[in-house]
Amino acid sequence: MSYFPNIDVVQYEGPKSNNPFAFKFYNPEEKVGDRTMEEILRFGVAYWHTFTEDLSDPFGAGTAIRPWDKYSGLDLAKARVDAAFEFFEKINAPYFCFHDVDIAPEGDTLRETNKNLDTIVAMIKDYMKDSKTKLLWNTVNNFTHPRFVHGAASSNHADVFAYAAAKVKKGLEVGKELGAENYVFWGGREGYETLLNTDMKLELDNLARFFHMAIDYAKEIGFDAQFLIEPKPKEPTSHQYDFDVASGYAFLQNYDLQDHFKFNIEANHATLAGHTFEHELRYARIHNMLGSVDANQGHPLLGWDTDEFPTDLYATTLAMYEILKNGGLGRGGLNFDAKVRRGSFEPEDLFTAHIAGMDSFAVGLKVAHRLIEDRVLDQVVEERYESFSKGIGLEIVEGKTDFHKLEAYALGLDEIKNSSGKLERIKSTINQYLLRVYADKE
Amino acid sequence: MSYFPNIDVVQYEGPKSNNPFAFKFYNPEEKVGDRTMEEILRFGVAYWHTFTEDLSDPFGAGTAIRPWDKYSGLDLAKARVDAAFEFFEKINAPYFCFHDVDIAPEGDTLRETNKNLDTIVAMIKDYMKDSKTKLLWNTVNNFTHPRFVHGAASSNHADVFAYAAAKVKKGLEVGKELGAENYVFWGGREGYETLLNTDMKLELDNLARFFHMAIDYAKEIGFDAQFLIEPKPKEPTSHQYDFDVASGYAFLQNYDLQDHFKFNIEANHATLAGHTFEHELRYARIHNMLGSVDANQGHPLLGWDTDEFPTDLYATTLAMYEILKNGGLGRGGLNFDAKVRRGSFEPEDLFTAHIAGMDSFAVGLKVAHRLIEDRVLDQVVEERYESFSKGIGLEIVEGKTDFHKLEAYALGLDEIKNSSGKLERIKSTINQYLLRVYADKE
Amino acid sequence: MSYFPNIDVVQYEGPKSNNPFAFKFYNPEEKVGDRTMEEILRFGVAYWHTFTEDLSDPFGAGTAIRPWDKYSGLDLAKARVDAAFEFFEKINAPYFCFHDVDIAPEGDTLRETNKNLDTIVAMIKDYMKDSKTKLLWNTVNNFTHPRFVHGAASSNHADVFAYAAAKVKKGLEVGKELGAENYVFWGGREGYETLLNTDMKLELDNLARFFHMAIDYAKEIGFDAQFLIEPKPKEPTSHQYDFDVASGYAFLQNYDLQDHFKFNIEANHATLAGHTFEHELRYARIHNMLGSVDANQGHPLLGWDTDEFPTDLYATTLAMYEILKNGGLGRGGLNFDAKVRRGSFEPEDLFTAHIAGMDSFAVGLKVAHRLIEDRVLDQVVEERYESFSKGIGLEIVEGKTDFHKLEAYALGLDEIKNSSGKLERIKSTINQYLLRVYADKE
Amino acid sequence: MSYFPNIDVVQYEGPKSNNPFAFKFYNPEEKVGDRTMEEILRFGVAYWHTFTEDLSDPFGAGTAIRPWDKYSGLDLAKARVDAAFEFFEKINAPYFCFHDVDIAPEGDTLRETNKNLDTIVAMIKDYMKDSKTKLLWNTVNNFTHPRFVHGAASSNHADVFAYAAAKVKKGLEVGKELGAENYVFWGGREGYETLLNTDMKLELDNLARFFHMAIDYAKEIGFDAQFLIEPKPKEPTSHQYDFDVASGYAFLQNYDLQDHFKFNIEANHATLAGHTFEHELRYARIHNMLGSVDANQGHPLLGWDTDEFPTDLYATTLAMYEILKNGGLGRGGLNFDAKVRRGSFEPEDLFTAHIAGMDSFAVGLKVAHRLIEDRVLDQVVEERYESFSKGIGLEIVEGKTDFHKLEAYALGLDEIKNSSGKLERIKSTINQYLLRVYADKE
Repeated sequence: MSYFPNIDVVQYEGPKSNNPFAFKFYNPEEKVGDRTMEEILRFGVAYWHTFTEDLSDPFGAGTAIRPWDKYSGLDLAKARVDAAFEFFEKINAPYFCFHDVDIAPEGDTLRETNKNLDTIVAMIKDYMKDSKTKLLWNTVNNFTHPRFVHGAASSNHADVFAYAAAKVKKGLEVGKELGAENYVFWGGREGYETLLNTDMKLELDNLARFFHMAIDYAKEIGFDAQFLIEPKPKEPTSHQYDFDVASGYAFLQNYDLQDHFKFNIEANHATLAGHTFEHELRYARIHNMLGSVDANQGHPLLGWDTDEFPTDLYATTLAMYEILKNGGLGRGGLNFDAKVRRGSFEPEDLFTAHIAGMDSFAVGLKVAHRLIEDRVLDQVVEERYESFSKGIGLEIVEGKTDFHKLEAYALGLDEIKNSSGKLERIKSTINQYLLRVYADKE
Repeated sequence: MSYFPNIDVVQYEGPKSNNPFAFKFYNPEEKVGDRTMEEILRFGVAYWHTFTEDLSDPFGAGTAIRPWDKYSGLDLAKARVDAAFEFFEKINAPYFCFHDVDIAPEGDTLRETNKNLDTIVAMIKDYMKDSKTKLLWNTVNNFTHPRFVHGAASSNHADVFAYAAAKVKKGLEVGKELGAENYVFWGGREGYETLLNTDMKLELDNLARFFHMAIDYAKEIGFDAQFLIEPKPKEPTSHQYDFDVASGYAFLQNYDLQDHFKFNIEANHATLAGHTFEHELRYARIHNMLGSVDANQGHPLLGWDTDEFPTDLYATTLAMYEILKNGGLGRGGLNFDAKVRRGSFEPEDLFTAHIAGMDSFAVGLKVAHRLIEDRVLDQVVEERYESFSKGIGLEIVEGKTDFHKLEAYALGLDEIKNSSGKLERIKSTINQYLLRVYADKE
Repeated sequence: MSYFPNIDVVQYEGPKSNNPFAFKFYNPEEKVGDRTMEEILRFGVAYWHTFTEDLSDPFGAGTAIRPWDKYSGLDLAKARVDAAFEFFEKINAPYFCFHDVDIAPEGDTLRETNKNLDTIVAMIKDYMKDSKTKLLWNTVNNFTHPRFVHGAASSNHADVFAYAAAKVKKGLEVGKELGAENYVFWGGREGYETLLNTDMKLELDNLARFFHMAIDYAKEIGFDAQFLIEPKPKEPTSHQYDFDVASGYAFLQNYDLQDHFKFNIEANHATLAGHTFEHELRYARIHNMLGSVDANQGHPLLGWDTDEFPTDLYATTLAMYEILKNGGLGRGGLNFDAKVRRGSFEPEDLFTAHIAGMDSFAVGLKVAHRLIEDRVLDQVVEERYESFSKGIGLEIVEGKTDFHKLEAYALGLDEIKNSSGKLERIKSTINQYLLRVYADKE
Repeated sequence: MSYFPNIDVVQYEGPKSNNPFAFKFYNPEEKVGDRTMEEILRFGVAYWHTFTEDLSDPFGAGTAIRPWDKYSGLDLAKARVDAAFEFFEKINAPYFCFHDVDIAPEGDTLRETNKNLDTIVAMIKDYMKDSKTKLLWNTVNNFTHPRFVHGAASSNHADVFAYAAAKVKKGLEVGKELGAENYVFWGGREGYETLLNTDMKLELDNLARFFHMAIDYAKEIGFDAQFLIEPKPKEPTSHQYDFDVASGYAFLQNYDLQDHFKFNIEANHATLAGHTFEHELRYARIHNMLGSVDANQGHPLLGWDTDEFPTDLYATTLAMYEILKNGGLGRGGLNFDAKVRRGSFEPEDLFTAHIAGMDSFAVGLKVAHRLIEDRVLDQVVEERYESFSKGIGLEIVEGKTDFHKLEAYALGLDEIKNSSGKLERIKSTINQYLLRVYADKE
């Protein structure tokens, strides 16, 4: 049977297509440089937003019309797996991602929960044998259940810490079972509601202990996935410990964890933290900590995580610029941690939304590639920093100078002549590259 | 003599041009519909940002390199006029805008200030005889001088009110003298630092009294410019009375001023108020209050008025969509209330920035025009609201129903079937229109 | 039986009490001026947050432990009524407020929903006979159900408009039945997700039509409650039509509704709109539009409606200042539209939270009263605006001047001498008043 | 001669004083615990805001009336020193802080600038002989001059780096000469306007090189001041490298600088970064990185650094709580990096503002001290985290467990019982402590 009987996705029809179910810009086999779009972009479908999400919000009940919602319990979980692999095939997704509770219902006991998981994991494994779609990453949800109200690994309650550990242990086993390329930690409740009742030092210490135990266990079972921290500044807690990439990096260094983790960077989390998406990517990249990406976008005027499908071509261009400069995402990918709007509640919106996102990143990839090929920004940077390639600048970079020499040099200077940063012109050029990306070739 | 001897602006070279001083998208004579780009866009150069601004910021001294800065006093003012008309001609600007203090220095007394103004206004008038560039609007600066520290028309001090009135009186005379098509009121200090020492009622009443006197005086001297209120939510005061278009509209209605004013809507002011640019335009449009536009953009992560040159093609497209739906801007125009970044301090940046802005609005215009021609959004709206064109919906719209009838109707309904709002698909389509705007024609 | 068997609230024990269930500052019978605290403050308990809310958030399931949750359906609804009146009595609440769906479950049809409502309304009416607690206001929830996904009175679907009307019709009848002193309209879905698919003009026109029909029907049935609009800028929609008091006032004037409505002002909605709480109150007050208050507070660093219990004494002081200056709230009151934090999930938190809120407003009342009695701010204002009580200032205020006279006056002025606004000193004085409020009397 | 002839500050008159120039709460000699208020609070006056600032803003000229402004050049600098030490004595300030350019004018050459500095430093040193007021910290201004338009230590221009180094070298010498207890680095231009033209890696590397050279030079000259980094997220640059304490800590660790620096934490910078003031203090404290404090406050609704004098007693209480828990500030202090509002332009406002700030911190100190003495929050925390003091919790903390043991433990658990976090009750208690701080003693 089919959950999406009337939807035929056309893999690529080009920019002039009027078919809402056709890709206009993403062509998986198209070469960009020496790799195909599919190899570079490594798109992932987020199981929770696409198959589990009901589109409720704090002021409204779920609106999602999902053909599988006629089932319940484990049957519902199984129906979702059927729907998922049908969806993966139709949309031609190379990867997917999930939390434990997305794929299988929690039981009354941890044992029962694990049993449910085993059932569905086996079913997924079976599907994966005949599918091209692989597991980009998995994780466990240690934030929804009331037991995690005060945190999981940073809970004030040792039993909760233990329970969270048991769940991550199982998550690592599931990841290994399904060949996950990464394992993600998003600490939805690892933060605080208020400092007034919080022992921040103990909570951070415990969080680090938790991570070290996870590393040990993954090693023990031979699960070699890349571990990823996913920063978010706030929501649901008032202040999340992994506020942004920099604060996550401070934490990892402080607890000797920096060699075992990279970052899973989400666009909307970046903007909530007061950073551009590209800032977080750049920061991670230059510290060799860029692991994977949660590809979505926020609403610039709303103060919560809207998790919109990414359609802003400026954002996708600058993101792909960082990713290409990083040599790609390695084991990571572009996971659509994005949900259709509450008003986009029909099954077909799931398709048009993913197409919107994939097309947007395909355009971003092509524009970024041409910016790099033409050395547009590289040349700007090279010229701007030229003074560090010779003379006193080179001495600075090579560590051959000190305040005495620099003062002597400065005392000998006439007026220093800076050059314009030319931002308006650069932005204009990027617009040109964007608008010409399809004009030039057709 | 020339202030920009080495800069030759090329009016239009097309999207492939590599010349930073050439327009790539704005072609003043190109027809879009039945009018030319120049007729529709009505670009204005902001005198203050382009000829007076020194690019200082709260933490740094001015960086701008301006060849006319070798002069001072009235000579500087005259040099700026020379530079301005050279700039207008090179950039081919149909309009310009100014505050009194932009063009002429304040004297030690009001009388001397007015005399300085007369001198420069005469010089400008002379230039305008041989120039295509007209005055989109003028205004007076009633916010920079320390006397306006507690407000101008909303000052707590009656002398300041009187002084502000005298300045606006002169401003209206200057506007008439130079044929200004509009006259703008931006109340830079019309708001409050704190409610704790503020009589808000008296201040609002006085503001209304001030506007009524301005209307009377303009009528008296036969100055028929469109009066414009420019909303801004905060900065420099903690709370500006003209917070946004809606609050300005509430004020105008409350004081019987709504027939005498329209709004001058600034993109960056919109976003500071928590609105999109297009929201403010739409709100003004449907209330028949859209007068003119301050074309700039803000930085989505910064909390102050950055007044950047507009380069975001989404914003220009949606702005032009509202403007075209409004039948154009009438007497209004697109004034670049935008300044080059502090790091873009060379004279040539003034050109590349204006080119960036003009090109961006030209692209926006073309994309919006095609969206309208193809009825892309009109069709979406038509289908979504179809139920109001017949049956109970039509009765609602025609005022022929009441709660009794509606209840009876509702009691007879089965489940109501809503349709998806399809936002992701619409955004995807807009990307397609954007990317095809030049692809399709070449 | 009792739902709160172990909780004895002590009405007033004074500031030194260590009993978490005792009021320390709110003493209902204490006179402040010539009225008691209870008469001035008119506290209301919000049914939804206190009896219906489960404390779920977008990332977590409900945590609330509520003894009545062992029931379901209509039995649950009845148990909540029992619990509510027990709570009202223990906390000594003069008022309560509800939405239709808070008190009774929706049925499969509108008819069944209304029948459920009738059952519970009768039960409540019965309770009210023997209770001091009255109904401050009621309203209907036209935002949670999926049918309202695209709006209610501003829906794109006429059937939804009709359904919403039927619900408000019933709401007005319920309000009359229970003697509600006000009727509130909070348009949770009256706004838009995106302008791209929205006919804003039609939606606003329809909203106005809806309000006119509500006025007519209330008049018809003799329900003389004060109608209240509750502004909120965003959430759940991206942009709510009643963004703030000013935009609501613009709407009301534009559609000739201003004489039929006042505003219900919520602290957290004010701050989300970029205003202080006291700004919204002041604006409403001086336009004679201050109706009632939703007493809560937001988290200054979070971008969504946190609906916290009000504990900030600066906010309660400045709010009570406006309310006292308004001569009180008339038929309105201080409704705690506030929920305990998700981590405060025990039944006793409902008590301590209400005590926190009531105590905070009691302190605010006393500080504000003394500020007014001592004319602290009145004197500041009087001195600051003195120039408008004589000479040219008086002429301005009396409308006896014009730009000619003002210019002549201004030309004759020497340097204008402004005086310091003294904000730091005023804030210091307010701190003194706050800290002395209990020091002085004991 | 006197610059403030009519102002007599009364050191302490108690909460009932009506004298605006009397301290109501700050009593330097009052013991709080075993130290005096003066010893704990270590207040500093910011030279720039108090003696150099003209109260201009981006839309307005300076309004400050300062008796010393009749002078210019080096005479002005000298007059400011006279005024400063008169002010320090009247306000009884134990400390002051300055940037190089605050105290002496820049010359045409670096050599001349240094000469000017030497003159004024000698004069200050002379004053300090007979004054109780010591130098809390000094720094150099490497952000105002146009040469720093693209950064100082992170400039793209090696000459600017050298110039900045020469200035810091001089700053360290000046600090040593005047016995500064700390030396501050606030990198006003160490960030970027846009990533598009920025080599972030090189800039961060250079910044680290710069700091290492500063450490070396301070050691060389025997200047043993505590080095302090002052985080700020944005403004003037779009993105400052020292965004917040966590990102600063990441940087310091990454470049092996963490043992040489602590943080100077500014309240308003914290809130601009999306953190509470107490968060930044707590984070620094538990990482042993809390060095000093810039005591001011921001406006919660404004998006720029307003640098207001601190009057919010909640903020001062929670700040002092962290500081007392830190065992005090060590060599650091509470520097009023705060300016009077533009409307508070009279000389006497400088006094009332400092009194407001000092009184507010004195209250905060006393409330915090009593909260600690009574173990109000300590007890909450102790109870909440009790489970980590025994059993599995203790094993976790002592590192004696792993995922195997934790899973076994979790499988054996029944339902986990969390307890309420009781935030409302805690906030209520803090209000009680605040309101009783003076009630109890008089």
